[in-house]
Formats: sequence, structure tokens, C-alpha cells
Amino acid sequence: MSFLRHITACNTHDLSHYRPFFVAGQRVGMVREDLCRRLAGFGDPFTIRYDGIAVSESLAGPAERTAAVRSALDRLVEEGEVPPLRGEDYPVLSQWGTEPLMAMDRAAMPCFGLKCFGLHVNGYVRKEDGLHLWVGKRAMDRGVAPGQYDNLVAGGQPAGLSLAENLEKEGAEEASLPPELVRRAVPVGIVSYLMGTEAGLKDDSLFCYDLELDETFEPRNTDGEVERFELWPVSKVAESVERTDDWKFNVNLVVIDFLIRHGFLTPDHPEYMALCKGLRR
Amino acid sequence: MSFLRHITACNTHDLSHYRPFFVAGQRVGMVREDLCRRLAGFGDPFTIRYDGIAVSESLAGPAERTAAVRSALDRLVEEGEVPPLRGEDYPVLSQWGTEPLMAMDRAAMPCFGLKCFGLHVNGYVRKEDGLHLWVGKRAMDRGVAPGQYDNLVAGGQPAGLSLAENLEKEGAEEASLPPELVRRAVPVGIVSYLMGTEAGLKDDSLFCYDLELDETFEPRNTDGEVERFELWPVSKVAESVERTDDWKFNVNLVVIDFLIRHGFLTPDHPEYMALCKGLRR
Repeated sequence: MSFLRHITACNTHDLSHYRPFFVAGQRVGMVREDLCRRLAGFGDPFTIRYDGIAVSESLAGPAERTAAVRSALDRLVEEGEVPPLRGEDYPVLSQWGTEPLMAMDRAAMPCFGLKCFGLHVNGYVRKEDGLHLWVGKRAMDRGVAPGQYDNLVAGGQPAGLSLAENLEKEGAEEASLPPELVRRAVPVGIVSYLMGTEAGLKDDSLFCYDLELDETFEPRNTDGEVERFELWPVSKVAESVERTDDWKFNVNLVVIDFLIRHGFLTPDHPEYMALCKGLRR
Repeated sequence: MSFLRHITACNTHDLSHYRPFFVAGQRVGMVREDLCRRLAGFGDPFTIRYDGIAVSESLAGPAERTAAVRSALDRLVEEGEVPPLRGEDYPVLSQWGTEPLMAMDRAAMPCFGLKCFGLHVNGYVRKEDGLHLWVGKRAMDRGVAPGQYDNLVAGGQPAGLSLAENLEKEGAEEASLPPELVRRAVPVGIVSYLMGTEAGLKDDSLFCYDLELDETFEPRNTDGEVERFELWPVSKVAESVERTDDWKFNVNLVVIDFLIRHGFLTPDHPEYMALCKGLRR
């Protein structure tokens, strides 16, 4: 019975088995040692550095890097070194706000420990008896977190879209939010974590938004990711996150951040300080 | 012209010149090397450890430690090793939420690098033309940050008061907030930093509160800390924090946190990610 265990779960990793990964001379990620060994023997487009693995500096720019690594990934997927690609490119950034150094299929991002960004929208309704939060139950056929609870809207940040464009796209697909409504979502900070998984390292930063909705709005999913939406009192949400593992791993953190910012989780809670500090690594 | 420089200023320190400080067998702080040398020669109530300096373990409990260290501090103040005491005791904690191991005059806390806690209240008013924030101009005769801008209410957390009691006390003293009004302040998270100063290390965590006020309420200071209050549009507050050094050093951080949580500082800002991560160390 703890909120903090969710933050611990999202920040469990052992960096001693990873080596730095470089693109365009910049350190952008970390590769597991066994994959490093495979990449070292792969040749172009990868080169060995004394301190890690790099995408060859001979490749002229982002487009050339993206194409060359995509071909290599096809072979690495066949060999079972990288999970099946998902056909959606993410930007490879040294940090948020910089120009992409290349793009890479989202499935391969953790294999190289690359920074991924996403957006999560807390959709809430002020009722007479207090705040209520829209909760999405993920479809059972999803590869990630089937049947678990999710935010009203959540999605990764793909290459070629601004955050605002992605918010509009995801809002429409996941909850049928009209553009003029989703634009009212207020950015309220980030949640970030570094999570070791079978594929590699998830170095994720999630932009959090709060969107106040009136009682008449009913979200409706159109992309098959969510089975149904339910409107829960915040107390029920808090109890569920604290006591169960029913929520998608990183949604727990977004909800904990919401509970803190809105004063539902207070300094009296023994985990308060650790939660505040643990939400952003 | 930057928000981030305020976070940098509050987190500038060089720990290589400090040694660990222990109370009741627990590491609770850090002492500057030159003060360590003096304490090592002082004898009771301080003892030397191979890895730092401790309050003697022979002292039976919190009351005995507090009394013995208080006598020692009087001598250290005379010698100029510790700044003049202020006559207000702060709790010495291994971490927030634990029982105090002893108490110590607030002026001496940074000399031992002890964790200090405080509370800051963002008092805001929703007007037709947007959010406004109450800004206190500190009195010119203050030892700390004379003439600089402050939150509506701000104060350190003394020994023997709960956070809620302190909120009520400070709200009354600093802004004449009646108890039933100040109790509506919503805890919204923390801001923390580690700042090297002439006296030592400020290891501070500030509990932040938002308090919505209506247009009719006029804060009035009673304890002489604030010269006058002004109600500023949030845009003026943001511009002032970004462009000037007119604000008390740590109030900058509380205001930046407010601007992020309320969506005035957005992911488009080049410093956004660094600000989000830098507000809590």
C-alpha cells in the first residue's frame, strides 16, 4: 500500500551493463552491453568508440542517418536483437527543444536508451461533491498495459509534430476531443523517469496537462486503444493508485503528480517529500 | 534574462569543503572544514568520527542534546564561528516526517548544513483580465533580502509547531489572514535546493501553497517583515522574475513553480525542462 513503489518501479535500472550511444558527436543514449557487442560487429552505420557506440559520423545529416539506421534495424529485428518495429518514427534529441539529430522507430528507442517524450492529459470535472477524473480502461488487445487504467489522453511524441499538434491529434483519436476544447488543456509540468526494461532503457519525460471539462462532455475513443471511459471521484482514483497495480506503469506517476498539485496528497502523507522529489529525475 | 539562473544560484555549492555531521548516529548535515577543525578541538558536546563530526552519543536524548549544543553555540558565536543567534529553534530532522533528534537556533542551522523546512503561500486573485498575484515588498530593515519581493506569506518551520499551525501563525502575522481563510490554502508540492553561503549550506525544502482570494481581501502586515503588498498581473510577475534580481532568492523558485503549474510558463520556453527538473533537488 504505497504511492512511492510506482516511482521506484519506473526508476529501477542498472547502468553498469550499458555503454554510451552517440549521434553526431553527441551522447544521446545508452546501449545494453550485449547489443553493443552485436553493433560493434555490424559495421556501417555503427562505429566503435573507445567510450561506446556511435552512428557513423560519415553520414551527412539527419535524413541519411535515419535511412541507414532503419536498414540496419530491419536486420536487427530479424535477428531478434530489436523488437518488431511499429512503423512510427520518434525524434532523436540530445535534449528537449533542440533540433532532431535523426529519427528512429519508436520500438527501437529503448534499445538505444534514447530520450522519449510524451503527453498525458488529466481530464477532470468539478462536481458539487468534488473533483472527478476521467479514467480510460485500455483495450485488452494492446501490446502495452492491456486492460489497465490510463489518462483521458496519452501518447508518445512522434517526429515531425509539435507538442500542440500532437495534443490535438491524440485528443481527437483517443477521446474525440474537438480541437477548440483540447486547446484549453493547461500544461502543468513534467514527470520523468529512467526505467530498465527487457528491451533497454526507457528515458521518458511526460508533459502533463490538466483539462477541465463540464459534466456534459462524454469522451469516446476512436483508435481502439481504450475500451471505455469512466468518471471517478478523485478519492477513488487515489485509493486505487495507492493500493492496486491496475494502472499503466507511468500513468501512476502522472496521477500522483495531479494529486499533489491539487492538494489531495498532502505534506501529512509519510511519502510526500519522496513523491515530490521522485516524480522528476 | 533567464528563469534558470535563479535555480542555479540556489544550487551553487562545493561539497568538497564539507564533512558529514551526525546526530544520534544519523547523518543529518554537513559542516565546513574550518568549522570542523574548531569543533574537533572544542570537546563536549562534539566528538570526532573518522568520517566527520558528531554530537556526542553520550547525551541521552533530544532535550539534552539541544541544551548542550546551545551552550556550545553561545561560545562559538562569541568566537565569530557562528552568526548571532536569533532566538528561534528549528527541529533537527534526518528527514521530513520523522521525530526531531534535537532543536537548534535557526541562525546556526546552515553552519551544520541541516535540513530546514519552510512554507510559502502564493496568494492569487482571479480577475476578469486573468490571474493576479499578491506580492510583498520586504521591509528595508530586514537582515535577509531587504526591499526585495516576497510571497504573500512565507516562513521557516520552527520546532514544536505543525505545518498547519505554522501556516495559521504566519498567515496572521504576515498578511492578517484570518484562520478560516488561510486554512483554504491548498498544498501543491515542494521546491528544494542546496545553496552554499558564507555561513554554510542551506539544505532547504519549501512547502508551497496556493490560496485563491477574492478581490475584496487586502493583506496587511503586522510583524514588520513586509513594507507593503501589491497585486500584480501574473505576466508582470513573470517578466520581473525573468529579467530582474528584485525577488528574494528562493521566492524566485516558488514563483517559477507557480508559473509552471498554472500554465504561464509552457513547454515552448527553452528552459522549460530544466526548470521543471531543477525546482526539486
